[in-house]
Amino acid sequence: MEKDKTYYAKREKVYLSGTLFPDIRVGMQKVNLTPSVEIKDGEKRLIPNDPVYIYDTSGSFGDESVQIDLKKGLPRLRESWILQRGDVEQLSEVSSSYGRQRLEDASLDHLRFEHIALPYRAKSGRKISQMAYAKAGIITPEMEYVAIRENMNCEAMGVSSYITPEFVREEIAAGRAVLPANINHPESEPMIIGRNFLVKINTNIGNSATTSSIEEEVDKAVWSCKWGGDTLMDLSTGENIHETREWIIRNCPVPVGTVPIYQALEKVNGKVEDLNWDIYRDTLIEQCEQGVDYFTIHAGIRLHNVHLADKRKTGIVSRGGSILSKWCLHYQQENFLYEHFDEICDILAQYDVAVSLGDGLRPGSIYDANDEAQFAELDTLGELVLRAWEKDVQAFVEGPGHVPLHKIAENMQRQIDKCHAAPFYTLGPLVTDIAPGYDHITSAIGAAQIGWLGTAMLCYVTPKEHLALPNKEDVRNGVIAYKIAAHAADLAKGHPAACLRDDALSKARYEFRWRDQFHLSLDPERALEYFQEGRHTDGEYCTMCGPHFCAMKLSRSLRGE
Amino acid sequence: MEKDKTYYAKREKVYLSGTLFPDIRVGMQKVNLTPSVEIKDGEKRLIPNDPVYIYDTSGSFGDESVQIDLKKGLPRLRESWILQRGDVEQLSEVSSSYGRQRLEDASLDHLRFEHIALPYRAKSGRKISQMAYAKAGIITPEMEYVAIRENMNCEAMGVSSYITPEFVREEIAAGRAVLPANINHPESEPMIIGRNFLVKINTNIGNSATTSSIEEEVDKAVWSCKWGGDTLMDLSTGENIHETREWIIRNCPVPVGTVPIYQALEKVNGKVEDLNWDIYRDTLIEQCEQGVDYFTIHAGIRLHNVHLADKRKTGIVSRGGSILSKWCLHYQQENFLYEHFDEICDILAQYDVAVSLGDGLRPGSIYDANDEAQFAELDTLGELVLRAWEKDVQAFVEGPGHVPLHKIAENMQRQIDKCHAAPFYTLGPLVTDIAPGYDHITSAIGAAQIGWLGTAMLCYVTPKEHLALPNKEDVRNGVIAYKIAAHAADLAKGHPAACLRDDALSKARYEFRWRDQFHLSLDPERALEYFQEGRHTDGEYCTMCGPHFCAMKLSRSLRGE
Repeated sequence: MEKDKTYYAKREKVYLSGTLFPDIRVGMQKVNLTPSVEIKDGEKRLIPNDPVYIYDTSGSFGDESVQIDLKKGLPRLRESWILQRGDVEQLSEVSSSYGRQRLEDASLDHLRFEHIALPYRAKSGRKISQMAYAKAGIITPEMEYVAIRENMNCEAMGVSSYITPEFVREEIAAGRAVLPANINHPESEPMIIGRNFLVKINTNIGNSATTSSIEEEVDKAVWSCKWGGDTLMDLSTGENIHETREWIIRNCPVPVGTVPIYQALEKVNGKVEDLNWDIYRDTLIEQCEQGVDYFTIHAGIRLHNVHLADKRKTGIVSRGGSILSKWCLHYQQENFLYEHFDEICDILAQYDVAVSLGDGLRPGSIYDANDEAQFAELDTLGELVLRAWEKDVQAFVEGPGHVPLHKIAENMQRQIDKCHAAPFYTLGPLVTDIAPGYDHITSAIGAAQIGWLGTAMLCYVTPKEHLALPNKEDVRNGVIAYKIAAHAADLAKGHPAACLRDDALSKARYEFRWRDQFHLSLDPERALEYFQEGRHTDGEYCTMCGPHFCAMKLSRSLRGE
Repeated sequence: MEKDKTYYAKREKVYLSGTLFPDIRVGMQKVNLTPSVEIKDGEKRLIPNDPVYIYDTSGSFGDESVQIDLKKGLPRLRESWILQRGDVEQLSEVSSSYGRQRLEDASLDHLRFEHIALPYRAKSGRKISQMAYAKAGIITPEMEYVAIRENMNCEAMGVSSYITPEFVREEIAAGRAVLPANINHPESEPMIIGRNFLVKINTNIGNSATTSSIEEEVDKAVWSCKWGGDTLMDLSTGENIHETREWIIRNCPVPVGTVPIYQALEKVNGKVEDLNWDIYRDTLIEQCEQGVDYFTIHAGIRLHNVHLADKRKTGIVSRGGSILSKWCLHYQQENFLYEHFDEICDILAQYDVAVSLGDGLRPGSIYDANDEAQFAELDTLGELVLRAWEKDVQAFVEGPGHVPLHKIAENMQRQIDKCHAAPFYTLGPLVTDIAPGYDHITSAIGAAQIGWLGTAMLCYVTPKEHLALPNKEDVRNGVIAYKIAAHAADLAKGHPAACLRDDALSKARYEFRWRDQFHLSLDPERALEYFQEGRHTDGEYCTMCGPHFCAMKLSRSLRGE
């Protein structure tokens, strides 16, 4: 196939500027398309095709003109915006005792990210979360950034201002949307999670005690952003979590989430009984100051609800949920995360870290879906949403899990009702239990459905779910399956510009502009690979039907083309 | 991992007998499970787990005790049932002139299946279709066979006679279900396609002019049955279609479908203008006598509707649809398949071949979904259903294609309304156009949805759709994606025994009975492979979370297990 760049379509990174904030540069992929060829009255005419813009999560990694040095980390895009607000201060040292201890440990020098900046924190008495600004009527650069991102291609569809900065502000103020933006992760490009925006996907990476190295995890993080992950959760549970996280955050162009209880448990050598508020609190501060953008916090586990899981087929399948249930039962005391939830919010508010209210009692099987345990916890999560909002902490709510198709709608409806329209963030759900090895598919089916119904962010599942840690290829397959689910939901929700990419791709397909088709697709490399596997060069058919049975070719001939 | 067969779960082929017809033997896979281990008061007790039966499409290939010789073909399971009815006769030679010509051509001897039996046909004036029997109040062995198959595991769920032979008869008589059963394909195990039964999946195989050999195609046919394909369409368009088909049918334990217009077109060297009723008619008879169980017939393409596709983004994407549209436009005449539809049914009735009313104007892109062209054709298909039923020809109706999630329900509702509740058989639908290379996933999402709403059979799509011919691994991935969609639909429709397999698998998962989990899964080989990739031996965790963070382990410990 020719490599003539002037002819073949090519993706390129372009940037749009703000109106309120002319300095912001919102990156996106522009797909330049080749012209259509029309033959009329024996004459060949070239008819240009408008470019298509693609929402891009790859940050500087997707910009060929930017040199990236993983050892230095990404450019600190938002730092000047944060500082210009004048409401944060740089600390003279990290506040968490564990953070200091790791920094002082010379034996970790070879693992350490070299260019660690001192953390920022809100000045005393200042409210610095995007929610606080939104409630105060202030539009931030972050808000205009996401408005431009979300509005992409709308103009081309004749809908010039579908998402305005003011609309973004209103949604954040109302709690219907979250803009994760820890002031200590200025490398992250603003994005928004909410029912009235494009459906987002989260990818999980992280080593467990048995495998994986820092380098591998950073590599997977960058890789998942390349394929379209909107946020990234680092679920590492092995050694050197602290150092691994620093490397990931410094090189991650999307918001990063964690589950702090995992690290807290490592600090007490895996002994659940030894967990306590002090260790957890120190872990929160440690991670806030590293730049984690949102925490999954299983504060919805309540002592009086734990027994509800006894009737289940698969008990408690959330790692955090099982840890805190064990703690509650051991001490016969209320969950310390619930007890200290207001203090947690006070800490998070100082860094603008969002809370993702964990569903520790999510169902782990079709049998357990929509049961009493699950919905009792959801009620608590609704209560916690209000408590977070009181402190101007942005909040979203995690959801299942395993749910058959006909029980999905109830999940969404109850979440909206009980959680005051805070964004819903679900893991799948898997619509059957019987396909280990293919759970990216079982769950993409449920994810598309619940996304259509209003879930704001879908947590991906890889083919290795239930079996092993995903490798890079698994991450890619998981991300693409979820990009499909999210886009299917965007189409079904009637996003005015979502279909533009489908339409452009289908037109390219019909006109045998193969390169255009591939560049518009979610995974151009895979599409090209399969096409070439058919041992076929550019032309008006593929090996699927062969030259004589290509319906599109025949159909075009009917139109005299 | 130990290979102790007395301990580890194992699938085995077992057979259930009929009540009305004690001689019939309905094959299914029985999964013998290992006992659960319960520790109470320090004592270890073994609690047996009931076996789970799995619907099995692999025929004798799935029975280790049966020796199979592809050169001889499968046992002729239904032949005695057919002959006992006394209403068919064996012909002294094949009736189609093309069939005779191929048989007499010595240059084809090396390609030919050796043991070709002379075909059967209805005795003059006799009605031999399952629909004719059903209308006459007769329950056939085929009907009891499918009742037993469909009823599997219901007893274990306390629903002893969910599907009775009489219910099967009623559904076929009403046209709400089709039991494809060409008297010349006695190797095929009876199965049923209808809204009130388990959702089925079809797999397509077939070479195009550019690749593939007979051996490869037979191999793919057997392979697709192994993974769970309920019917098989041979869409070959290259040379030696006749001989390839004979090999496939003789070795295929599931009903086989074709699109006869493909072969008719080959016979006129690809020149659409040279197609005519005589050639098509001879092709129908040729294939009826080889044993094809259902034909896709694009009789819904109408001269006055072809122009409706002009407004589309992707025109006509059905191969048959584009061929017949071209023919109509060339001659400015009504589609000869529509004109001769009653004669077609007269032929099909003599062999009990079902008609699958092709959707030649199905949408090939999100943009074209649910348009006038598509629905105008559906109206015609509804009219043809009644004409088929008048001749006691079993009929089902094909559907899209590419449809966004929110437009799927309209497809199903209109099909039920316009087509008199004849079964719907859809290709996906794909819920977005933007994922070439992953269209097994985009379409499994739509398939699960439309299956839940009432589609009786889902035509699979492989990852190579739009790009190239599928290889064996693609077939496997396509079949499993569709088994997931079909099963998700069965669960959502509330089939009383569908969840039994999910529940048993989840229980095994929770109890770390890994082998049981894998044997209950749709693809035990893949699950085991991934599990072992994690370099993990049997134990109470996997590498996904590691030993200290396994929620299930922790959760079980809370129950004192």
